[in-house]
Amino acid sequence: MPASPIRKLVPFSDAAKKRGVKVYHLNIGQPDLETPEPFWQALQALNLKTLEYCPSNGLEVYREAFARYYERLGIRLSASNFMITEGASEALAFAMLSCMDEGDEVIIPEPMYANYIGFANVGKIVVKPISTAIDTGFALPSMEEFERAISPRTKAILVCNPNNPTGYLYSQRELETLRDICLRHDLFLFADEVYREFVYDGKKHTSALQLNGMEKHVVVFDSISKRFSACGARIGALVTRNEEVLAAALKFGQARLSPNTLGQLAGLPLFALGSEYYERVVKEYQRRRDLIIEELNKIPGVVCPTPGGAFYAVAQLPVDDADAFCQWMLEKFTHEGATVMMAPASGFYASAGKGAREVRLAYVLREDDLMAAMRCLQQGLREYNRSESSGSQKNV
Amino acid sequence: MPASPIRKLVPFSDAAKKRGVKVYHLNIGQPDLETPEPFWQALQALNLKTLEYCPSNGLEVYREAFARYYERLGIRLSASNFMITEGASEALAFAMLSCMDEGDEVIIPEPMYANYIGFANVGKIVVKPISTAIDTGFALPSMEEFERAISPRTKAILVCNPNNPTGYLYSQRELETLRDICLRHDLFLFADEVYREFVYDGKKHTSALQLNGMEKHVVVFDSISKRFSACGARIGALVTRNEEVLAAALKFGQARLSPNTLGQLAGLPLFALGSEYYERVVKEYQRRRDLIIEELNKIPGVVCPTPGGAFYAVAQLPVDDADAFCQWMLEKFTHEGATVMMAPASGFYASAGKGAREVRLAYVLREDDLMAAMRCLQQGLREYNRSESSGSQKNV
Repeated sequence: MPASPIRKLVPFSDAAKKRGVKVYHLNIGQPDLETPEPFWQALQALNLKTLEYCPSNGLEVYREAFARYYERLGIRLSASNFMITEGASEALAFAMLSCMDEGDEVIIPEPMYANYIGFANVGKIVVKPISTAIDTGFALPSMEEFERAISPRTKAILVCNPNNPTGYLYSQRELETLRDICLRHDLFLFADEVYREFVYDGKKHTSALQLNGMEKHVVVFDSISKRFSACGARIGALVTRNEEVLAAALKFGQARLSPNTLGQLAGLPLFALGSEYYERVVKEYQRRRDLIIEELNKIPGVVCPTPGGAFYAVAQLPVDDADAFCQWMLEKFTHEGATVMMAPASGFYASAGKGAREVRLAYVLREDDLMAAMRCLQQGLREYNRSESSGSQKNV
Repeated sequence: MPASPIRKLVPFSDAAKKRGVKVYHLNIGQPDLETPEPFWQALQALNLKTLEYCPSNGLEVYREAFARYYERLGIRLSASNFMITEGASEALAFAMLSCMDEGDEVIIPEPMYANYIGFANVGKIVVKPISTAIDTGFALPSMEEFERAISPRTKAILVCNPNNPTGYLYSQRELETLRDICLRHDLFLFADEVYREFVYDGKKHTSALQLNGMEKHVVVFDSISKRFSACGARIGALVTRNEEVLAAALKFGQARLSPNTLGQLAGLPLFALGSEYYERVVKEYQRRRDLIIEELNKIPGVVCPTPGGAFYAVAQLPVDDADAFCQWMLEKFTHEGATVMMAPASGFYASAGKGAREVRLAYVLREDDLMAAMRCLQQGLREYNRSESSGSQKNV
């Protein structure tokens, strides 16, 4: 499997820290916000003697609470529509292995979350990327382009909405187009919706589970990791109304016995959090997004469309090779004792050579740190391009 | 994937409970002993703001504590020899995918832990069973038999020691034989040692990690699930001195981001538990083993060798079809308001038709319950065989 784009620069980041340089981490989607208090309280209140396996599809009480959360979103589901997994990652792996055979194809808009490729590789499933581009803000391509990508081996389309890495929020219309394609060609629609609540400018998120006529086709991946800043809990879910998919996924679930019990028991009360929680978090991320987008676009030569959701942005930099630039930032550059770590976007493209000038930035720092990081990036680009014109960066 | 032998009777067990029958669960390896207090104390003492991802190979502090635990066993390892996984299950899956390609073969003595087959299936790896039999107490077959099973596609031998489902404890000599075979044919030796401490009659467990000259060949699967009655924590480990295997497994680990953080933080102090803890637990299981083996062999027609470790026994029953008998026990039988649930052993054999008269029993109940379960089983066998001779069981 290829090295993860968010991890391959880790050795250089470690080296930067060793030489005493502060590193602003914009490279990884690890929220800095606090895990809500009810999570910690639930752990404190545990009164168990033996920490047992839970059922392979998760604790029923947890799945029921999950269903009630969906009901408040206007989506009717029952506990039996959920399979609790070790993060959305495992849900994704199980869905791919359950719905596709070796050699089958899944169409995924690129840039895409790099681990999709890793999970497809395990099942020897072929990822067929379909391009979205920075100059259209990473909007979905036309229905015709999707249909050109479909072959007799195509079994599914996978979207992440709002998107990682681009932050793009799919419109209801785009989702309806996807529905039409999936129904016409009898494809699964896999939707990674772990950032569902993180949408800005008063826009509304449309879940694939809200598409009519798609009961058998839609499989959603969900998680408490981002929604509740609880990445380390490793509690996600596969959500579908397709009973056959659930039955097949359960076989894989039984092989690994069960998801972890502690994360479910601690996460349980989080589903009861009301709109106040979400409003506060969304406001915080939106302020950061506004800051980072404004500052990025102020930097000469940088282009960054305004993302509608999640907490990522993909920016095009005035460099030929963003991989080399990101490495240089960690190895050679310091501004006021600090540097910035970003994820080169090339790793988010399945097509070779694409995204060479782009980086993904995760706005998971407080505003003052984000501002300092932006100043640092601006200075870095200036120095890098100065050294580039003098030819010295060739040794990087 | 085939249905798990420990789960396929669950609907019948649920039905028994619905009709008010108490079910003695001897079917699943869920320890009933308490998770040690330091686990719960560590959870109480947590003082985190945000529950973050940990490194993909696990928290360093946890891996260091793990290495110290091994050092007390006389096995020198460093934190870098460990990859922390979601239970031993994930370690197994990662090892198979890292060390073998599609079509490669792994030799496993049968009966075997059924999920080995499930994980092999994911990687399209071929499980080649090698028979052990109840009349030799499930001892390993001769080196010659292993060598007959080896083909150019064979990449590994997998043993579970002490064994699930048989409870068989491999001798040092048997392990040395395995070492010789692995070195001669350049095979990996995968060793599932999650029951390592549970050995009886004063015998000593030999770890595959203690075999000289096998640094590149041995991959051990470990877990806190059984050792510390913490199955729901889902914290296991892949342990090896082979850096290439660790690097390959890490790629899969990065795709799923990280193991859960809570289980590691809570499990950390358990490695400091001293011999007093292990002695108490081993004494408890040994008493139960003594009871169950004695009672089983008292029942007319039942044969059960004495297992040297773990908390399982495989018994041969005086029935033609243990699957049908186990189902009948749940569907039709009651003795003093109760019945017994066992795992038919056929599911632990990869070879079709084997183990038809055998069941696996897990002694994870208190002695009085075990005794009641044994009386219940004896009565069940009597009634079943009476109805069989009258022909009525044909409708089961």
